[in-house]
Amino acid sequence: MLYLIGLGLGDAKDITVKGLEVVRRCSRVYLEAYTSVLTVGKEALEEFYGRKLILADREEVEQEADNILKDADVSDVAFLVVGDPFGATTHSDLILRATKLGIPYQVIHNASIMNAVGCCGLQLYKFGETVSIVFWTDTWRPESFFDRVKKNRQNGMHTLCLLDIKVKEQSLENLMRGRKIYEPPRYMSVNQAAQQLLEIVENQRARGEEPAITEETLCVGLARVGAEDQKIAAGTLQQMCTVDLGGPLHSLVITGGTLHPLEMEMLSLFSIPESQSINGL
Amino acid sequence: MLYLIGLGLGDAKDITVKGLEVVRRCSRVYLEAYTSVLTVGKEALEEFYGRKLILADREEVEQEADNILKDADVSDVAFLVVGDPFGATTHSDLILRATKLGIPYQVIHNASIMNAVGCCGLQLYKFGETVSIVFWTDTWRPESFFDRVKKNRQNGMHTLCLLDIKVKEQSLENLMRGRKIYEPPRYMSVNQAAQQLLEIVENQRARGEEPAITEETLCVGLARVGAEDQKIAAGTLQQMCTVDLGGPLHSLVITGGTLHPLEMEMLSLFSIPESQSINGL
Repeated sequence: MLYLIGLGLGDAKDITVKGLEVVRRCSRVYLEAYTSVLTVGKEALEEFYGRKLILADREEVEQEADNILKDADVSDVAFLVVGDPFGATTHSDLILRATKLGIPYQVIHNASIMNAVGCCGLQLYKFGETVSIVFWTDTWRPESFFDRVKKNRQNGMHTLCLLDIKVKEQSLENLMRGRKIYEPPRYMSVNQAAQQLLEIVENQRARGEEPAITEETLCVGLARVGAEDQKIAAGTLQQMCTVDLGGPLHSLVITGGTLHPLEMEMLSLFSIPESQSINGL
Repeated sequence: MLYLIGLGLGDAKDITVKGLEVVRRCSRVYLEAYTSVLTVGKEALEEFYGRKLILADREEVEQEADNILKDADVSDVAFLVVGDPFGATTHSDLILRATKLGIPYQVIHNASIMNAVGCCGLQLYKFGETVSIVFWTDTWRPESFFDRVKKNRQNGMHTLCLLDIKVKEQSLENLMRGRKIYEPPRYMSVNQAAQQLLEIVENQRARGEEPAITEETLCVGLARVGAEDQKIAAGTLQQMCTVDLGGPLHSLVITGGTLHPLEMEMLSLFSIPESQSINGL
């Protein structure tokens, strides 16, 4: 049996009791290591689970899926995913491949940012399409996701923005020379995301378009959701450029415009104090 | 401290390790008993947790929140919610009230249908606004949610339909006579939801409107997501009227029209065999 097990969002103890039992009895346990991270590292998980974990990066999952699935028809193999196994599509690949090989699978769900984002007080059912904001480079500065934010806002829906993670990236030089030397991991902050968004707003204005959001649009920044030191800040997009939310992972919500009174009241618990904002915004 | 703890979707062991530790040390433990249900009852939970649970129905949470929060500033109180605590808005009420009383709170997240629905293979980020389908009565047959399905489909988004649960409902007679006698709980099935949807389609046609969905619209029925005997069936809305998914809880997804090839391939794992469908659809 192939088990896809969600680890939740915080630390080692956010696995479910059912998930932990399965991990402890599987013959091999893989840890997916690229779509998200916990606030603790592999060693802390290994110690708590009492099991050695095999790190599986994107390359391995895509190219060596057959190794992961080896003997899973006669023994139990666990594939651990931060959050829930159905946040990223690559896991569909793994399931489809298992099915073709006649290997049964079972999913042990857990919280993911897709539902835990509700902790800021915005109503989950009012979220529209989720977008990803990627790190811009000098030559690649995609703006197309902005249309989806616009569409969501036109329909009064909130937009959850997942922020880029760069894990096991090679510099162009190392890539060209075939050297497997990797850059330190990078996690986009709410500040960086907000700055990129404001740049898109400026670009649209320069082209004479009316942008779907402005400096004043109400946003929510979230950091380390589900962890002890989780931080949530509600304020304008301008405020999101400077608010200090600490270490990764961060996510950003662009609100849908009109809010339910209960949403407003919940957000007020997290509003950025005047003194922390620029120009008293 | 007030702890809001998600129980996940399946059985007693779907609580997280962190959640279980908190439950075992709290002075009082409430079980929210109206927005969703697990596949096991209160007794099974009590046995596994080793704690007595106090059932809290909607009335109690709304009217006796102060009882729930009593002494929570000096001791630990747990409030257990099937799925994740942020599925329903009533829990925002409880948090706001706690905050006003100066009681700190902590959320222990878990899977909810809002993210676990991804197990059918449809991509989570492509879901639009979530709708609720309620039991129609002879005199109350709301159709307004259908506009939101339409809007989602116009934007190529899937719609998760949460299906009605009637727990602790009184008959009109018992209500009028002030008798606290309750009807057996009722859970809307995918069949019932699909039949109501088709009736709305018919009504729209009778009014000369072009409905946003038809008998042929691709849908996914889900039952007992996260449990051992979970069932998923992909087929037309017409097929959803008769497909047998077994006991509660059920949910229904109306797809957004165009699907990603990976979504199609995943759905094909769950497609209804020809023989089970009406008229060979």
